[in-house]
Amino acid sequence: MHYLDNAATTRVAPAVTAEIARVMAEHFANPSSLYGPGLDSELLLRRARATVAAALGCGAGEVYFTACGSESNNIAILGQTAARRAWADHIVCTGYEHPSVHHVVEGLEKNGWRVSWVMPDAEGHVSVEALAEAVTAKTALVAAMEVNNETGAVLDTVRLAKLVKAKNSRTAVHVDGVQAWLRRPVKLDTSGIDSYSVSGHKIHAPKGIGALYLRKNALIQPPFLGGGQEKGIRPGTENLPYIAGLALAADTLRRTLPARAKKIAALNRQLREGLADLEGIVINSPADALPEVLNLSLPGVRSETMLHFLEQREIYVSSGSACSKGAASHTLAAMGLPAGRVDSALRISFCADNTPEDVDALLEGLRDGLATLARAR
Amino acid sequence: MHYLDNAATTRVAPAVTAEIARVMAEHFANPSSLYGPGLDSELLLRRARATVAAALGCGAGEVYFTACGSESNNIAILGQTAARRAWADHIVCTGYEHPSVHHVVEGLEKNGWRVSWVMPDAEGHVSVEALAEAVTAKTALVAAMEVNNETGAVLDTVRLAKLVKAKNSRTAVHVDGVQAWLRRPVKLDTSGIDSYSVSGHKIHAPKGIGALYLRKNALIQPPFLGGGQEKGIRPGTENLPYIAGLALAADTLRRTLPARAKKIAALNRQLREGLADLEGIVINSPADALPEVLNLSLPGVRSETMLHFLEQREIYVSSGSACSKGAASHTLAAMGLPAGRVDSALRISFCADNTPEDVDALLEGLRDGLATLARAR
Repeated sequence: MHYLDNAATTRVAPAVTAEIARVMAEHFANPSSLYGPGLDSELLLRRARATVAAALGCGAGEVYFTACGSESNNIAILGQTAARRAWADHIVCTGYEHPSVHHVVEGLEKNGWRVSWVMPDAEGHVSVEALAEAVTAKTALVAAMEVNNETGAVLDTVRLAKLVKAKNSRTAVHVDGVQAWLRRPVKLDTSGIDSYSVSGHKIHAPKGIGALYLRKNALIQPPFLGGGQEKGIRPGTENLPYIAGLALAADTLRRTLPARAKKIAALNRQLREGLADLEGIVINSPADALPEVLNLSLPGVRSETMLHFLEQREIYVSSGSACSKGAASHTLAAMGLPAGRVDSALRISFCADNTPEDVDALLEGLRDGLATLARAR
Repeated sequence: MHYLDNAATTRVAPAVTAEIARVMAEHFANPSSLYGPGLDSELLLRRARATVAAALGCGAGEVYFTACGSESNNIAILGQTAARRAWADHIVCTGYEHPSVHHVVEGLEKNGWRVSWVMPDAEGHVSVEALAEAVTAKTALVAAMEVNNETGAVLDTVRLAKLVKAKNSRTAVHVDGVQAWLRRPVKLDTSGIDSYSVSGHKIHAPKGIGALYLRKNALIQPPFLGGGQEKGIRPGTENLPYIAGLALAADTLRRTLPARAKKIAALNRQLREGLADLEGIVINSPADALPEVLNLSLPGVRSETMLHFLEQREIYVSSGSACSKGAASHTLAAMGLPAGRVDSALRISFCADNTPEDVDALLEGLRDGLATLARAR
């Protein structure tokens, strides 16, 4: 199998699965229970939080466990805008966000908030300066993705935070870091960023676990209420097995980041070089995109047609993002690309388990696919 | 170990852990992905939904997977009140709800909703008639727990739905079924109930998975937005391993319900008979409570003191609910019990793994504890 859809989801690392099974067997007590096994669970939770904090470059008290990146985004955006409602009426947001940011901000727009949507250019870049320029005295929040999920375009979120705070120190800066985390270095505690969402299933932990970084003393009004878990930010009995699994995955990836980045940069280079020899292919990712993601179009061949052609060879890639399940790419449309390029887009996304053989198989598949499918049309 | 705190959380069944590990290894593809392995994940998700629906007595299209009972409660209450805001301004709620209902309704009260709180009587019962009587033409929602988490008191939610709908057919009836599910029979599709919350970790699945029953065509405005997963009611990539684990746990418990109920009723009888021989113990649970839960007080001995005494013998019970982590019991206070009884309360809660030996050990522990601790004071 040539699995090249790691931006959609990653394989759970076997060591992570084993850790999850171990915690289920050995630490089933509720971390809120007062007896010994409950305290053991609580200690495990505390250690996991410190480990995840190390991989976010922040204090352990700034990490909140959630069920997924989407939940983290909802809590951060709804919670931080609600807490600023008394004086604010405005939000700044890029035009290429994940649905769990985009739709939430749209929802707020329907409820009376004014929104400045800052679109990506044709290369896929959103201007940090344009985002900051849109900030006013009444801006509650700026939301921006660090790495775009469809193209891999990178936004300098530290610079963004600096520019936004210079304009309005009360404006919260929320960053969706789901595709960026542990693929590039991050140090949140000195970043000026107020909130940062991450997800387990993009880093070889399972689907169903995420985390939210919230700057110490962040101004937030939690949208969901309940028991006091996660300091009231995210109520619900803690998913200890997955939290331990997330910590293990994060720790492993943090330690291997430089080596993995080098390997993946080489795979990306190999792919770009191979694509240069193929006719009828256009690359949609910016040249300085995260090497994990490469978006391309094969004008004239619909995304799904090529996706299923490749699938016959057990080569798995994606058309747009998995979340939108085959709908036309939100990001490429926002970039203003013509319909023919949007409808024929494919996203290739690597992890460190991929090999040069995967890239060779993909290149051969694309070459044969173009020949076969072009003939067919 | 004598684990008698199954209302706080249950041990994950080894078969459930194995199923979760299997799904992680064999079905890591995103259910939203368009290629074969994604479709396999989607099929597994569909099968799990049908299995959980069978254990709720409803259609598969009425089951939504969430991360926990608290999330289910938040979605149901916030979503159904928001969808009725145009004409409604009133909520009816019992006075002994779980924090994820109680605090959410309190939050709505702060935001301008009027709330009728219907308190339990000294025996622990909330009157279904009183709840229905409080309903007006402007009532958006009635929220009531089927089995109280601290005393095991049972409320006839089917009768509640009938009475509420007779009074106002537009009023939503939300039931927190977390402590009731698979401990007593449920058939939601003919119940008149609009929404029903359940949780995995109370039925030998792990913490971090829950479900929400939402009646077909239920009127709801989802509080969180994102990708289209779970028909937009609960966005976020589906936690397939835990969903499969929840389905296995639910299916197993559904098939064994009559046998388990018989066994647990016998344990409850044994406990009540044994307690009758001990001096200085008052039972706080109603006589017709769910046999899984027995709440008692030992006036003069603080809950935590006895809890830690029992812990030395590896007997694990709870003081109040785990969620409130040692805070004085919300339910017993609502029942109007005197402080001495509230401060000395213990909750014993069974599952079918418990044995008569567990009850013997507990009775001996309580007897010795009373002798030792009474001497000490």
